[in-house]
Parts: sequence; structure tokens; C-alpha cells
Amino acid sequence: MPRISQKGRMMPASPIRKLVPFAEQAKKRGIRVFHLNIGQPDIETPEVALRAVRNFSQKVVEYSHSAGIRSYREKLAGYYQKNDIEITADDIIIGAGASEAILFAMQTCMDPGDEIIIPEPFYANYNGFAINAGVRIVPIPSTIESGFALPDISEFEKAISPRTRAIMICNPNNPTGYLYSVHELEVLKEIVLKHDLYLFADEVYREFCYDGLTHHSVMHFEGLDDHVVLIDSVSKRYSACGVRIGAMISRNREVMQTALKFAQARLSPPTFGQVAAEAALDTPDSYFHGVLEEYLARRNVVVESINGMEGAFCPKPSGAFYVVARLPIDDSDRFCQWLLEEFSFEGQTVMLAPATGFYATPGKGLNEVRISYVLKVADLERSMICLREALQVYPGQTF
Amino acid sequence: MPRISQKGRMMPASPIRKLVPFAEQAKKRGIRVFHLNIGQPDIETPEVALRAVRNFSQKVVEYSHSAGIRSYREKLAGYYQKNDIEITADDIIIGAGASEAILFAMQTCMDPGDEIIIPEPFYANYNGFAINAGVRIVPIPSTIESGFALPDISEFEKAISPRTRAIMICNPNNPTGYLYSVHELEVLKEIVLKHDLYLFADEVYREFCYDGLTHHSVMHFEGLDDHVVLIDSVSKRYSACGVRIGAMISRNREVMQTALKFAQARLSPPTFGQVAAEAALDTPDSYFHGVLEEYLARRNVVVESINGMEGAFCPKPSGAFYVVARLPIDDSDRFCQWLLEEFSFEGQTVMLAPATGFYATPGKGLNEVRISYVLKVADLERSMICLREALQVYPGQTF
Repeated sequence: MPRISQKGRMMPASPIRKLVPFAEQAKKRGIRVFHLNIGQPDIETPEVALRAVRNFSQKVVEYSHSAGIRSYREKLAGYYQKNDIEITADDIIIGAGASEAILFAMQTCMDPGDEIIIPEPFYANYNGFAINAGVRIVPIPSTIESGFALPDISEFEKAISPRTRAIMICNPNNPTGYLYSVHELEVLKEIVLKHDLYLFADEVYREFCYDGLTHHSVMHFEGLDDHVVLIDSVSKRYSACGVRIGAMISRNREVMQTALKFAQARLSPPTFGQVAAEAALDTPDSYFHGVLEEYLARRNVVVESINGMEGAFCPKPSGAFYVVARLPIDDSDRFCQWLLEEFSFEGQTVMLAPATGFYATPGKGLNEVRISYVLKVADLERSMICLREALQVYPGQTF
Repeated sequence: MPRISQKGRMMPASPIRKLVPFAEQAKKRGIRVFHLNIGQPDIETPEVALRAVRNFSQKVVEYSHSAGIRSYREKLAGYYQKNDIEITADDIIIGAGASEAILFAMQTCMDPGDEIIIPEPFYANYNGFAINAGVRIVPIPSTIESGFALPDISEFEKAISPRTRAIMICNPNNPTGYLYSVHELEVLKEIVLKHDLYLFADEVYREFCYDGLTHHSVMHFEGLDDHVVLIDSVSKRYSACGVRIGAMISRNREVMQTALKFAQARLSPPTFGQVAAEAALDTPDSYFHGVLEEYLARRNVVVESINGMEGAFCPKPSGAFYVVARLPIDDSDRFCQWLLEEFSFEGQTVMLAPATGFYATPGKGLNEVRISYVLKVADLERSMICLREALQVYPGQTF
């Protein structure tokens, strides 16, 4: 029997999905499982997007342009201009989700063995993309005590080697919800220019900012045109994860011309998804107001509940719809599995994501979990009661 | 300015698309361009598939399972069973087109520096996927004189090295249209078992067989379960290239478990495309009868026309909707560009794909072109008249 690739063996199983069989078993035992483990919002996809797909009238579902349907890219450029990001349709390549956009960016800018610096904890799937591209992630620490702010510039300097090609941030952050300040982005600008690096910025949660704070894009900075690659997606913005439409955006012509060759090899992004995403650009502002109000209420329930639990701590981040919380537990993998396998309170339990999967450094995140606040307030309140009760009886508690 | 990756520099521009700007200029000059350069059929997508998308009634467009929607995979297993291919839903991972399925297969089974043997000419985008995965394609010659039959077993033996991990075939073949016989597949089985290799079989044109011949799948052979990875797509079968739905299929459990990790990293394949593809499985047989009759007539027009041209030769392949023809020309790249830049006959010209892009060996295919017979018979007849006239006046003719 021929052997599996080294790369395939190295590829991590998704930290979010490895608990799925335990959740299924819990459900079979009649237990209601609150899913706080995954970033699949329950918010409805805007009607205007769904309607466009229902009204699809072409007779042949053809390949689109490899960079995406022209009219969509032009309209999308208008969306960015509204967000003070001056780009044109030619600066955009539409990908099958942010996932494909990140792969295009890595393959275009980095070779196997090259290094990318990412503050940890970070979105676990970056590991998969990095292994895919043969790229090595060099983590630098952001800490729960500082609310997961950008690590100090000295941490970047320490991590930079001759193989460093890029720095990657996610802003607002998944998994921490942290929203970077203008000052922090200026620090990044300085490092990137000093060491002639690429700056990959995953800004898929751009709209999800709270507490009166606004999002600052790395695209706003002058002098970074050759360095910045923006990663985007409509998945969260319009609660349309299944359309698989993202984008890789850069003002660096050579980067875009090279990325286009990767895009051409896979022919085109999904046509129906692009139709939905183009129409979604007409989503009324009122949709976002309602969504933000809802998420703010959800965040407050989670943060306040956790901070009310003995031995637990949760920062109050101003973005996205995640928090990373510290719990009085020995091992978050064990705890999250135990919640599904052995625990229930009044017939209910919660599914969380162990934070270990978001750290590259072994041993980190053992007493942290990521919570996606993607359920209605009433369900979140029930979830938090479950969590509080669970911490009282978990055998590996560390009060 | 940070540098582009080595991989990005190596990545070939699509041989099919590099002529597009010349075609656009020709159209601006008022010339009608017959597109025989690309495998985008003009056949209508089955109504049953389009209707399913129009009737999409979910309120949230959610991620699907990373391997694809369960009900789709189960129904798809039924399609394969109808084709005497005994597989289950668990043997299938749905990809964003055959493109992603090929990438999954390469990444799962091969490491950077590993080699894959492919008879040339071959589908040009295999080059892109190979560079993407860091894999080296080792071409072995199939020749126009033999109609592009499978190379002799001695050619495979010569090409095998310690780094050889797989053999790849496309059956029926793009670009040659060649349909492999049972005997040829048996030869492949023998080599694959002898050297413990994977056999990747791209069978996306399975239904497109003519002259009373039927398609034999590598999945039909016993004893190859651990070796065979089937690549499939709905793009051509249902003329639905834009849905971006393909599949990677294998009975090798370890291969599928590993591939699933790559699939999980990119979350899920497109939901709308899967809805269309699942419904497309109900396409009535009459649709295919009509389509096959149409393609047969088209093939005959092209093959007979070319063989009637002085100094030209076209095999009569029994599958897909492509032929590779030999023309009395010095350089197919130059000729195809000249057709768009300098030639027209009665206000019309043709766009062909230079065969050089389908060969990995430099210098091969200089006097060959690939023709996709994806236009109506009347347009193909006009195209062939254009081609005949062009060969009379082309400055680089080699009569």
C-alpha cells in the first residue's frame, strides 16, 4: 500500500471538529448541546442575497473570470471605497472563501521553508494553510492579561529570521475578539517596512466592532502598498458561510499578477456564490445595526457571566464574535470532551473549542477556551449556567 | 519591495487564456471569433439543477460538512453504483471543482519533490496543481500517430524513479479525446501494483463516449482499492462549470481520512453548487442522449474537415469533446495568435489552443492545436472554413 504524504501526516485535525463525534453521542443520549464551538452564526442571510440566487436566469452556469465576475469586483471596490479603502476591481481576486484567498497569498509571497510571524492564539486553520504551502508559522505571544493586544515590538524583532517573509494578523481577531488600535497597526507598519516583509491582514470581521470603536484597516496606511495583502470574506459579514466567497486584495501589481496564475489554474470561483455576494452588497445598513446590537448583547452576557464564575476570567474584546476565556481547569481538551461525554445540567450541556488548538506553542491554552457567541441571548444565558455548574463538578478543576 | 515566491514565478500562465487579449482586440475590430479554445460547453445546464437553486429555501447559507452535504454524497454514491462503481458516501470528498479534488489528492499522497508520471499531452492545469503541491510531473510520450493511445509499458518503466509516487491519467482524455481501452487500463494496473504507486484517474468526461464504445473506470478493477484515487466533476457532465463541484473518491481509508484534514482546513465546498449538483443527479437520460448526439455530429465535422485540409491530420477520438490536430504550421503559439491578430475570412476567425501548453517537454506540440468542439455544427463548419483559409495564407505554413 502506497504511503501517505509527510504533509498529510503533519496536517492537524480541526480542533473545532474533533469533538463533533462526542457532541453527536451526547445528542443521542437526549442531551441538548449548545454550540459555542464554531463561528457559524444563526443570523439570517440578507434576503437581497438569497433573492438574487433564486432569480438566477442564465441557461448555462458558466465559468466566471478566474479573478471573479467583473461586475461583482467593481461593485466590491465600491464597498471598500465606502470603508475608506481605495482600490479598484483589478486589485481584487475572488476566492472560494477567505480560505482560498489565504492560500493564494501564501503561495504567491512565500516558498516552502519561509516563515510567517503570527501572534498567538490565532485562527487554527492558518496551520492547515501553512502546512499546505510548506510555510512555517512562527508564533509570538499575545496574552489574556493584556486582552490579547498586539505583542510588543521586541517580540517581533526576536522572531524575525532570514526566512521571515510575512507577518499575519486577524483584525478583529478570531479567536480573541481583539480589535487592533491605530497605534498597534503603526507598529506593524514600522516592522514591515524595516524588514521588507509582507503584511497579511485577515479583516473578515471588519463590521463587527463594539463599544463605539471603529475598525482601522491596514489598507488605510500610506507607504504599504507593496506590502499589504488584505484577506476578506462575505461569510460572517452576511452570515453566508456556505457561499464560499472571499477575496485576496493588494495594490502590489506583481503580487496580483502572480496570484492570478494560481487562480487561473483552478479556473474560477463559484458562480452562484458570487451572485449572492454581489447582491449582498445592497444589504441595507439597518441589517447591520440589528446584527451589531444583537452581538453586543450576546458578548455582554458571556463576558459578564464568565467573570462572575469563581476562578474564571474573560477579557471584554471589542470585535468579532469570539472570546477566549481562562477557566479553572487542568486541560481544555479534556474539559471540552468531558462536557460532552460526562456532563449535563438539566439535560443540557455546552460545546466549546479548547484554546490549545489556537496556540502553536505546545502547552499553551490548557486553561483557556474559545467561545463563539453565535446563539440567541436566552440560549447563551442557559449555556453560561451550564458552564458555571460544570466548573463546580469537573474533576480536573483547579480552584 | 518584498519578492514574489519562486513557486509564483514558476507558475505557468494558462495557455488557454494568454490569447484572450488578442481575441478581445479582434472583436473590437468587428471580427467574429469562434471560440474553440476552451472547454466551456454551450449546452444548457439541466433545468432540474437550476430549479433546485431557485427553490433554495433555507434562511441561512451555512457551511456544509467539509466532505460535502451528506444527502448529496449518498445520492452521488448511487450514481456511481449505476456506473458499476461500488462506493459509499464515506469514500467521497466533495471539492470546489475537480481542481480542488486534484490538489487534495496530490497533497494527501505526495510530498514536495515527489514525482507523478503523466502521458503527454495532458490537461495544462495539472502543471499548476503540481507546482502548487511542489510535485514534479514526469511526462511520457503519447503520439498523434497512435491517436494518443497509452504509451508502451516500457515508457512507464523508464520514467519510474525512487521519487515516483503516482501515475495520472485523464480518461476520456483532455486534450486528446482518447478513450482508454480495458487492456490499457490493465497495463496501468500492472505497473501500479508492481511499483506500489497511486493511480489518479480524472474521469470527468465519463459520459462523453462515442462510436458505441463505453467507458471503463479504474474503479472497476479488483485489487486496486488502496491505489486508485478517482477525480470527478459535474462541470462537463451537466454543463455546469460555474457551480465548482467536483469530487475526490477512494476506497483507501487512510487516504480519505488524510484528505479530509485538508478539506476541513478550507471548511466546506460551496453550498449552492452542491444543491445544484445533487438535483442534477435527477437529470433524465434523454438529456444525455441529446447531448451525445450533438457532440458526435460536432466531432465528425471537425475531424473530417481537418483531414480534408492539405498537410493536416486529426485522429478520430471516441471521447470527451476535444481533438488534438496536426497542422502544417511552424509554431502553434504563433499561429493561434496570428489567427486573432492578423487573419480573418469574411469577417470571421477562430480561436484555438496551441498544443505546446499541453506538453511538458519543450518543443513538443509546435505543429499541433487543441480544438474544443463546443459550438453548434453550423458554427463549427464556419470555423473549419476559416481554418482552411487561414492555412492557405499563414506565413509560417510548412507545406
